[in-house]
Amino acid sequence: MSAVNTIWVLLGAALVFFMQAGFAMVEAGFTRAKNSGNIIMKNLIDLSIGTPLYWFLGFGFMFGSSGLVFGGVDFFIHGNYDAVLPAGVPLWAFVAFQTVFCATSATIVSGAMAERTKFSAYCIYSAVISLFIYPVSGHWIWGGGFLAQLGFHDFAGSTAVHLVGGAAAVIGAWMLGPRIGKYGKDGTPKAILGHNITIGALGVFILWFAWFGFNACSTLSMEGDAIEAAGIIFMNTNMAATVAVVTTMLFTWIRYKKPDVSMTLNGALAGLVAITAGCDQVSPFGAACIGVIAGIAVVLATEFIDHRLKIDDPVGAISVHGVCGALGTILTGFFSTTQGLFYGKGTHFFLIQLLGVAVVILWVTLSMLLVFFLIDKTVGLRVSEREEIEGLDSTEHGLANAYADFLPNFHTDSLTGHVDNVLGVKKPVKNIPVDEAIPVSRAEKEAFDAKGGVITKVEVIMKQSRFEKFKEAMNAIGVTGMTVSQVLGCGVQKGATEYYRGSAVDMNLLPKVKVEIVVAKVPVEDVVRAARQSLYTGHIGDGKIFIYDLRDSVKVRTGETGYDALQGVDDL
Amino acid sequence: MSAVNTIWVLLGAALVFFMQAGFAMVEAGFTRAKNSGNIIMKNLIDLSIGTPLYWFLGFGFMFGSSGLVFGGVDFFIHGNYDAVLPAGVPLWAFVAFQTVFCATSATIVSGAMAERTKFSAYCIYSAVISLFIYPVSGHWIWGGGFLAQLGFHDFAGSTAVHLVGGAAAVIGAWMLGPRIGKYGKDGTPKAILGHNITIGALGVFILWFAWFGFNACSTLSMEGDAIEAAGIIFMNTNMAATVAVVTTMLFTWIRYKKPDVSMTLNGALAGLVAITAGCDQVSPFGAACIGVIAGIAVVLATEFIDHRLKIDDPVGAISVHGVCGALGTILTGFFSTTQGLFYGKGTHFFLIQLLGVAVVILWVTLSMLLVFFLIDKTVGLRVSEREEIEGLDSTEHGLANAYADFLPNFHTDSLTGHVDNVLGVKKPVKNIPVDEAIPVSRAEKEAFDAKGGVITKVEVIMKQSRFEKFKEAMNAIGVTGMTVSQVLGCGVQKGATEYYRGSAVDMNLLPKVKVEIVVAKVPVEDVVRAARQSLYTGHIGDGKIFIYDLRDSVKVRTGETGYDALQGVDDL
Amino acid sequence: MSAVNTIWVLLGAALVFFMQAGFAMVEAGFTRAKNSGNIIMKNLIDLSIGTPLYWFLGFGFMFGSSGLVFGGVDFFIHGNYDAVLPAGVPLWAFVAFQTVFCATSATIVSGAMAERTKFSAYCIYSAVISLFIYPVSGHWIWGGGFLAQLGFHDFAGSTAVHLVGGAAAVIGAWMLGPRIGKYGKDGTPKAILGHNITIGALGVFILWFAWFGFNACSTLSMEGDAIEAAGIIFMNTNMAATVAVVTTMLFTWIRYKKPDVSMTLNGALAGLVAITAGCDQVSPFGAACIGVIAGIAVVLATEFIDHRLKIDDPVGAISVHGVCGALGTILTGFFSTTQGLFYGKGTHFFLIQLLGVAVVILWVTLSMLLVFFLIDKTVGLRVSEREEIEGLDSTEHGLANAYADFLPNFHTDSLTGHVDNVLGVKKPVKNIPVDEAIPVSRAEKEAFDAKGGVITKVEVIMKQSRFEKFKEAMNAIGVTGMTVSQVLGCGVQKGATEYYRGSAVDMNLLPKVKVEIVVAKVPVEDVVRAARQSLYTGHIGDGKIFIYDLRDSVKVRTGETGYDALQGVDDL
Repeated sequence: MSAVNTIWVLLGAALVFFMQAGFAMVEAGFTRAKNSGNIIMKNLIDLSIGTPLYWFLGFGFMFGSSGLVFGGVDFFIHGNYDAVLPAGVPLWAFVAFQTVFCATSATIVSGAMAERTKFSAYCIYSAVISLFIYPVSGHWIWGGGFLAQLGFHDFAGSTAVHLVGGAAAVIGAWMLGPRIGKYGKDGTPKAILGHNITIGALGVFILWFAWFGFNACSTLSMEGDAIEAAGIIFMNTNMAATVAVVTTMLFTWIRYKKPDVSMTLNGALAGLVAITAGCDQVSPFGAACIGVIAGIAVVLATEFIDHRLKIDDPVGAISVHGVCGALGTILTGFFSTTQGLFYGKGTHFFLIQLLGVAVVILWVTLSMLLVFFLIDKTVGLRVSEREEIEGLDSTEHGLANAYADFLPNFHTDSLTGHVDNVLGVKKPVKNIPVDEAIPVSRAEKEAFDAKGGVITKVEVIMKQSRFEKFKEAMNAIGVTGMTVSQVLGCGVQKGATEYYRGSAVDMNLLPKVKVEIVVAKVPVEDVVRAARQSLYTGHIGDGKIFIYDLRDSVKVRTGETGYDALQGVDDL
Repeated sequence: MSAVNTIWVLLGAALVFFMQAGFAMVEAGFTRAKNSGNIIMKNLIDLSIGTPLYWFLGFGFMFGSSGLVFGGVDFFIHGNYDAVLPAGVPLWAFVAFQTVFCATSATIVSGAMAERTKFSAYCIYSAVISLFIYPVSGHWIWGGGFLAQLGFHDFAGSTAVHLVGGAAAVIGAWMLGPRIGKYGKDGTPKAILGHNITIGALGVFILWFAWFGFNACSTLSMEGDAIEAAGIIFMNTNMAATVAVVTTMLFTWIRYKKPDVSMTLNGALAGLVAITAGCDQVSPFGAACIGVIAGIAVVLATEFIDHRLKIDDPVGAISVHGVCGALGTILTGFFSTTQGLFYGKGTHFFLIQLLGVAVVILWVTLSMLLVFFLIDKTVGLRVSEREEIEGLDSTEHGLANAYADFLPNFHTDSLTGHVDNVLGVKKPVKNIPVDEAIPVSRAEKEAFDAKGGVITKVEVIMKQSRFEKFKEAMNAIGVTGMTVSQVLGCGVQKGATEYYRGSAVDMNLLPKVKVEIVVAKVPVEDVVRAARQSLYTGHIGDGKIFIYDLRDSVKVRTGETGYDALQGVDDL
Repeated sequence: MSAVNTIWVLLGAALVFFMQAGFAMVEAGFTRAKNSGNIIMKNLIDLSIGTPLYWFLGFGFMFGSSGLVFGGVDFFIHGNYDAVLPAGVPLWAFVAFQTVFCATSATIVSGAMAERTKFSAYCIYSAVISLFIYPVSGHWIWGGGFLAQLGFHDFAGSTAVHLVGGAAAVIGAWMLGPRIGKYGKDGTPKAILGHNITIGALGVFILWFAWFGFNACSTLSMEGDAIEAAGIIFMNTNMAATVAVVTTMLFTWIRYKKPDVSMTLNGALAGLVAITAGCDQVSPFGAACIGVIAGIAVVLATEFIDHRLKIDDPVGAISVHGVCGALGTILTGFFSTTQGLFYGKGTHFFLIQLLGVAVVILWVTLSMLLVFFLIDKTVGLRVSEREEIEGLDSTEHGLANAYADFLPNFHTDSLTGHVDNVLGVKKPVKNIPVDEAIPVSRAEKEAFDAKGGVITKVEVIMKQSRFEKFKEAMNAIGVTGMTVSQVLGCGVQKGATEYYRGSAVDMNLLPKVKVEIVVAKVPVEDVVRAARQSLYTGHIGDGKIFIYDLRDSVKVRTGETGYDALQGVDDL
């Protein structure tokens, strides 16, 4: 056993695991808020379904023998793997390392299929790729299969991991069809903006950080030549990524007139994916060239896929992992200092690289077509139109909103119950009267009309912290419906001085709650009185009440108008 | 000195430190926005109070001797620790490693006591657990105390770290009582949604990543058998976590009809906590079993604590760390391949595990009851009702809002001052006229009434970027109050083409600002004129003005109505 | 080659790389949402421009010889670096390690210059510091230059990295001038709140985590004495940071009456910066003292820079990196156990430390003055007033909003196009009628007036998921303008039961969309009918319609009023 080799492999495994966090943040950030919880579940489940299945059979499929097309069947990894085990590395360390690579491949697809895939369908897909599809092509490349025997070189997985994920992503996204609203009637692609570019960027930084483990720790050793190799791999990885960033930035600057943020973030990933195959065999100069090519390719590929193929890939997973994965593998055929075309080593190696890419694309495409077809015919691949519009968080997971309490300072419930204190003494908190259903009678309505009754809107601007008391008071006088919104109140007013970084916060736009209540039966005077009572503190900023006449009111569900529209169950 | 052992220990220390980030994000994400700054401060302060105190006395209490119940008193760690120091690891590396474990235990409690605890009370609690409570039970388990001598096995801290934190969390959350609104009058638990599930999920991924250091680096060595052990520990840690995720997902799918996002995230942590005690002694199969049990237990425990015990634990810390910590320790008694019941090794070891769990629960419960009782009687444990409703960020830390500038595109101040440029040439920026207090006279009011004056609402929809100019113009004509809100304007209109990932952004819902001004004295014509002047650019999208009659207006503080309500200090 | 040394150096390089994520999050979180994309681009580009340039020439400038003031010129690192290479570490590993330190120095400046710097200007600055300014002073300190030869001690870069960045930040922020609105007419500093303290705090935790690599891995070796050194460095780093946190918290508690969140977060960074120079030569006690001093200094420096110097540094980079960088270097002169004044080693070393700090400040100040002056005279340093108010995301990068889809549950486009399903069968989705431009004729207007036509506002409260259908319906009847806002509807109503952590979500404030439509020509009856048809589902919660009279309406751009204001191109 070698301490340094094992440290190296386990460090790599931990870092590659951390890619799951990176993917989750990139995918959540670049899609819409209403699907955040779903995206996270998909990233979580990739690894979590994949780990036991890879242990169950996948690892054996990949490393069970040096057969040309298939490793072997070894339930729960009981076989002898001395032939493939890196020197001095314990079996379980190696298994853990391989497991997280498998999970990375699986998780690539979730981004391309985001915002419209059934969660159950995704779970099945995820199981199949981890159990079978990834291990089989993985065997060809890393498990001693025919590509390995031909001399195909994919050091850390441009093809074995990223292209496999990227090719599966094409099929998935194509079969699903685009998100509602992605293409106009004339086929023009529309931008659907992500909801949090900052967290997406954090995801990119996390992936980049983890990529040092992905690539450098793929030496699987820190003895002898591997030490020097680890250094150059680290350098090349960073070089390709940074050069790709600069390239994408400049290219979008020219093409779109401004340096594009989200595309440049993708540029970083493009460079990382592309350098992964040959990071051990190219020079820093070769790495920089690969970065330039990847940085341009990711932009053109994204446009081509989006505008021409009309495949809707919300996060750019196909161009980053698929296109740049293939590209990086092929470019190794040019830039490898030991075997590459550009170093006068002939075309043999280059053709092997081409062949490997082609074979893997073919394998993943055919197998995933079958898998997604079967899923579509059984559980179904895509959610309904209603579910897609409402968002998958709510419809697939029962999560009302991943940011439920983000801005509103209201809690979703009233002041109820009691607060136990330390020695069991109960401090009762005021109870709220139960909403009393107010029976509507014809007589009341007629009396109201006879009095020449009008419908009135009362608009109240108040402090956020008084809202609960206010709601209580309104309930008490029989007001059952209101709409509430957040506004900024801009009056001549000073609150308590608050400090931010040592400076007084001089906010003359103060957050307030605006409540609108439309009443017919409840007398306006009662509403105003109850409002004042519940809001009054005697301090500046207690708020204001505005009263408007309404011409009419309609309840959508029943079609009732005027007085009637404001009785019974409130539809707000 | 051993290079590999020291690298291993320091790598572990860095990763375990990083758990603080994970806890902070989980706890912030699963609670409400108004308490985010407070949650972060609590996580920051745990480690920061703990580190010097653990150095001061805690480490000595824990490792100062192999006494049955107590280590020793060694101010600032000057003693000789050769007996406990791992082979080849320098003292300070070991101290740093132990320090971050201590901080992890302390920080568990902040989640369970979130959203209602006084910050000063929390600081005191944090000091006591790091200085005394954790080191004492830590001594029993890892410092050569009576549990260690009995053969109690808690490899990386299911009990020593997580159960200690979890048991303290029960006491704290119970003594505090539930958050306002958590239980209905009839005792029904209500969900209080977190404000950012995405950042909470990131926290879980960070914790999981760090856990590889927590568990694997707890070998404290990478020599001899420790190498092989590190591999299996890594594998087991990931196995238990992933299996727990799948289990919780399926279990909630059945139980709540949909796979629950936040519970599944907790499932991951449950699996990690549970495997921590026995990760070096169980097989991957054992780890998977522990994962299944933890994945179900965390759901049932959360429900039991929430619905039956009615202890309000906003982030599920008690079920994750307390219940699964105890569970994992006890399950080691079943699944240990060398000592476990299921491997025919008899009940002795299992009973020792049970005993250890019981003793630690007893110790923490009694000592924390005393600590929280004393805190409650002195500085007080819980904030006031007003503070809780307003949020701890503002009331405890003077932080107006952790997301002050999140959505609104307004800045909180006006265009004032001047901008110095590089060589000191001043480019003056237009000054805003000072708000002139407009004196209200009876005569004016009477003249207004005589003219049959009406109260008018002027509603202006404008571009966000013109708002500051608009505010200026309104101030200049004496308008002192307005409410401002964000709306989306949906007109037939094209702005400058913007690109997002290479596609034109065809947003026909453009963000706009809506300002509502209610005026009586200031002539409406003046408002309209000033508005047009400040908003006019001649381009489509300059906005619109709508004018309404108001029936009446009331100032809450003074009770003034009509004309009077709109004079003097504005209460918006 | 040494495996352990190389692992240590590469681990350090990966961690120091990760600081980029930390800086990006701190800077994004502490500034306004409208500049988030720009901040991220600046952090991304620092490293990405820096890496190739440092490879191109910077590394040679720094390490090319042991000349007194300058290393050498070595294009793309082809020289022999045996003299400076740490024992057993491959050249490229060492280059990668040095590269990420260089990038850290460059990125410090972006925070101080946030929210108002031209992106092109920033790119140029970033190139110059990485290519020349950092390598030159770096040579003096670490490359064998005159400061190194004098015995100046800056172990991991309080001066070489942080002070260089901090001094450049002063010059940049001063030359730019403060953000609009930062200082009142009388010069009073105003707080401009950040938009996401949570993500800022995550950034601080990431930086802290990475700092263990920054400091401990700067031993560049894990052989012999370096092992022991790594342990004490790790301990000291954590000690100084935690003590600084506690100090800043208590100091702000006293000074501002409440423990300040963002300042305490800065306190952590202050402690980390300050301990960096002497972390290998001070005792834990010395580290704690340095933490206390840094924790107070960062508060006073922030106030001094903000209130006295009136330099606007949005994230506190100058006080953290500049002031505490200088301070930490000088304090090493006092607290070094081997050379410090407090340990009776005389003043010689202390004076050298002072000299080093002074020389570096001089060098950076003069060179950056020249650089920023030239940038200002050519491409210009600062964006226009309009761009600054609108935000750099939109004006510099064409990014409409980094949080475009954050809260609104609308998508930005309508239901159009078709959804391909798996076997190419098209499922057509209903088309939306094209907005037909409605020609305005005088005759219509006269007919309207003759009928005593009134302007009407129709306000519709609906479910978010029905909004697209509603918009379709409105377009179909010729309504071309509307304003849309998010409200919370509070009616007596139960929706589908949703679960959150096992508790039923009993949200009686449901998110709703409020649409306001002002119509003159289109009959109100048509609007109400179309609204009902598009919203009706027959379930409770279908929404409500309120109808108001409007006194008048004005189109800002044309000045048209009444009927006319509502025709033609809509300006909403």
